[in-house]
Amino acid sequence: MQTKHSIGILGATGMVGQRFIQLLENHPWFEIAWLAASDRSSGKPYGEAAKWRLDTPLPERIARMTVSPADPHGAPKIIFAALDAAIAREMEPRFAEAGCAVVSNSSAFRMAPNVPLVIPEINAEHLHLIEEQPSRRTTGGYMVTNPNCSSIGLVLALKPIEERFGIEQILVTTMQAVSGAGYPGVPSMDILGNVIPYIGSEEEKMEAETLKLLGRLEGHVVKPLGARISAHCNRVAVEDGHTESVSIKLKKPATHEELLAA
Amino acid sequence: MQTKHSIGILGATGMVGQRFIQLLENHPWFEIAWLAASDRSSGKPYGEAAKWRLDTPLPERIARMTVSPADPHGAPKIIFAALDAAIAREMEPRFAEAGCAVVSNSSAFRMAPNVPLVIPEINAEHLHLIEEQPSRRTTGGYMVTNPNCSSIGLVLALKPIEERFGIEQILVTTMQAVSGAGYPGVPSMDILGNVIPYIGSEEEKMEAETLKLLGRLEGHVVKPLGARISAHCNRVAVEDGHTESVSIKLKKPATHEELLAA
Amino acid sequence: MQTKHSIGILGATGMVGQRFIQLLENHPWFEIAWLAASDRSSGKPYGEAAKWRLDTPLPERIARMTVSPADPHGAPKIIFAALDAAIAREMEPRFAEAGCAVVSNSSAFRMAPNVPLVIPEINAEHLHLIEEQPSRRTTGGYMVTNPNCSSIGLVLALKPIEERFGIEQILVTTMQAVSGAGYPGVPSMDILGNVIPYIGSEEEKMEAETLKLLGRLEGHVVKPLGARISAHCNRVAVEDGHTESVSIKLKKPATHEELLAA
Amino acid sequence: MQTKHSIGILGATGMVGQRFIQLLENHPWFEIAWLAASDRSSGKPYGEAAKWRLDTPLPERIARMTVSPADPHGAPKIIFAALDAAIAREMEPRFAEAGCAVVSNSSAFRMAPNVPLVIPEINAEHLHLIEEQPSRRTTGGYMVTNPNCSSIGLVLALKPIEERFGIEQILVTTMQAVSGAGYPGVPSMDILGNVIPYIGSEEEKMEAETLKLLGRLEGHVVKPLGARISAHCNRVAVEDGHTESVSIKLKKPATHEELLAA
Repeated sequence: MQTKHSIGILGATGMVGQRFIQLLENHPWFEIAWLAASDRSSGKPYGEAAKWRLDTPLPERIARMTVSPADPHGAPKIIFAALDAAIAREMEPRFAEAGCAVVSNSSAFRMAPNVPLVIPEINAEHLHLIEEQPSRRTTGGYMVTNPNCSSIGLVLALKPIEERFGIEQILVTTMQAVSGAGYPGVPSMDILGNVIPYIGSEEEKMEAETLKLLGRLEGHVVKPLGARISAHCNRVAVEDGHTESVSIKLKKPATHEELLAA
Repeated sequence: MQTKHSIGILGATGMVGQRFIQLLENHPWFEIAWLAASDRSSGKPYGEAAKWRLDTPLPERIARMTVSPADPHGAPKIIFAALDAAIAREMEPRFAEAGCAVVSNSSAFRMAPNVPLVIPEINAEHLHLIEEQPSRRTTGGYMVTNPNCSSIGLVLALKPIEERFGIEQILVTTMQAVSGAGYPGVPSMDILGNVIPYIGSEEEKMEAETLKLLGRLEGHVVKPLGARISAHCNRVAVEDGHTESVSIKLKKPATHEELLAA
Repeated sequence: MQTKHSIGILGATGMVGQRFIQLLENHPWFEIAWLAASDRSSGKPYGEAAKWRLDTPLPERIARMTVSPADPHGAPKIIFAALDAAIAREMEPRFAEAGCAVVSNSSAFRMAPNVPLVIPEINAEHLHLIEEQPSRRTTGGYMVTNPNCSSIGLVLALKPIEERFGIEQILVTTMQAVSGAGYPGVPSMDILGNVIPYIGSEEEKMEAETLKLLGRLEGHVVKPLGARISAHCNRVAVEDGHTESVSIKLKKPATHEELLAA
Repeated sequence: MQTKHSIGILGATGMVGQRFIQLLENHPWFEIAWLAASDRSSGKPYGEAAKWRLDTPLPERIARMTVSPADPHGAPKIIFAALDAAIAREMEPRFAEAGCAVVSNSSAFRMAPNVPLVIPEINAEHLHLIEEQPSRRTTGGYMVTNPNCSSIGLVLALKPIEERFGIEQILVTTMQAVSGAGYPGVPSMDILGNVIPYIGSEEEKMEAETLKLLGRLEGHVVKPLGARISAHCNRVAVEDGHTESVSIKLKKPATHEELLAA
């Protein structure tokens, strides 16, 4: 039986950090060994620093761990980062340069040419971009990112269709849950009895990320899919789960049966 | 000062019938003189036959009116019809043949070639179709219809664009309030915390009606707009008001400024 | 290893019947061997007769079982009954007289003097009432009932307080989820943006059941708790789970600490 | 025709300040002549300083008014105050001492012995307390307060009953709309699919204010009603409007008819 890999969580007290804890505690490969957050929290027991908001109970072991300062010194070699984009922009490269593998949930570097944006089932080969990151050659550290929640479902549906028929145009309208906006997020007065027909910068992210995810690795770069894309993002009064309505234009004609088979 | 026109309401006890009463009571041109409903209600005072569900109070005068049987005999010459499509299909022609002007809110005859489907601001000239109805020549009676609620907002937005630039393709995703489904309509267990991604037969209606409304009267027929159209209709947990997200392809290129000016 | 008891479910296609299936499939003591429903469903495979509405998947084995007519002939000796009160009133005694142990979720016989109304943790000794049922002496069959969902939470909280301090008066206001009304249940137009301040016959049930559950078995009868009780039941826009706000008057003074210890 | 009284609004950019503007613009007695807010807003046109959130449009005249600093110098003699309690505690006395009549919506001085807490239909005679305020004798200025939204409905219902039968005990459970928490107020993740069974400090306010409002002016003081009271306050997923469930114990027995007549 192999020993587990020690991992750390950056931004461990926020909503995404809590979700990382929930998913990684009792994971067969990983062991949460380090939790870091802002100066306000560091030095305190996690159970005191964080206001736990998830349905499953905060594990006792995690509650007793002391929150570390957000500094690569003393951090494990694998870091799951749950930072706001503005902070991530400055902090994630610092951890990569210090030799860490930084797996980021923020949007800060998703579109950087030498940072892979990955859905493992879709485009694992994009991970080769890691080799283009300078830190890889010095300390061995690197950054990997995952996409916006609204892009993931879309790309999972489009990938097999793109492979078989080619896609020329994508039009997508989303109806997204309030949990996607974090906490406190959307004020209840804005969403009860309402649809909010705009989510700031979500449409741009969804469009750019979808084309990169469906893009092809050519040499040292990913060439984004050459399709026109337009995303319309709406917030609805739903706690969890996004609904998406998609129209595509194919390059090659396909019957309804062929599409379903894909 | 002109006297008002006497009008009647068919299906007066249902949700749409109640809305007609709310909007027509104290109308400057019309006087509600006759209320008809199914055998279960006819003969009773309206206030007893109907369970009033609107925010404004049921007018005293209306509450005391006796509900008539749904028969053209004794009905006024102008009828606002608020019937389910299945019943409308049989009953509206009967009133037209008896000489009534039947203004219908149901979907039964919207797509009939000799029945105008009208948004007054958009296609009033389609009213000439009335002359193609056989009853027009015998008793003078005829039928006019209004569109599905989800088509109205769409067409009002598209009409000026179609006139200036031409439309080749329309893709629309709706997020519709539960009030559109009538009462009792959507069960709360289906909609709380949810988006219902399908509304039975709404998409077909929305597609066909939009093309007819944007169509041109040529001689004795309306030629529907020759655009491709795809509608995706969703129900959301909102009491009143529909949200629609639309993508169009123009025949003639237009700048953002030109579109806004339209 | 002991063999499991075969059980049957009466009213298996409704919401409560589906919940019985969900909870009893893979149960360590019971084996679902028989599913009965109305004439409309009997003879069909369950998966076709029922529109499954729960979050967990319908078990394959259950989907293939044939629905039986609601007749004691051929039914197992243990029956979980999920019938509407009006039907239960007539059908549950028939199964008891045929020798079945009928565990009922309906309100039909909850207040009958010789039928136990039981929360196992609270008043298991009320089960002796079974011996007062005539069928018990002839075929061995009998009926047992469980309380209204809103009574269960209340009684679980009050029981230890009643034991230590005595209760003179209970005032309870509930805020109940829409799932408690079954399907289709509460129309969404009634509950979105609203509190419905009345649930028909729920208040009477909650008051009577609470006093019976907290009552004492004396000889052959249960003497209900001699407290005054008033229940106010409200429906709120929540999918699952009831909230209750309770005020009580004790017979014996108690400090806050003593109450919490209870 | 009499000229209108010039009035000012303190805290004019917040939710309550906006509501004051909505209700006082076009008022037959009052003319909005002065709008004050924090340093961040003062000096700017109101339409730029405030993010208007109400359904009715922001009046043009108001949008163009310049926001003043929150200083009594240059303010009208009648001030409607819409401040947070902490700021009100310091600022409202300053305006009273400068000679203003301060009508306050905050909780800061509601329970002060020499400040009237008034629902005009209920206890207008409490206004005599004004004479006990020191500023009244120097500059003529004074403070008047209105109650918490949840107390108003309760007291309006209880007053006639208290007068005819006397009240010994009041138990009230509220289900309050999110608009009562201001903006941004309740996060949507907290309220969708949920009842929040506690509103910080609302219960204490509701209990104390209700007894003061139902109290009697005796000489120079208001003697609060001598009844026991317990309030349980819940937040529900409703945009506007509170629901309250009340149980009372009378001093004198009353029939149901007598209560309804009251």
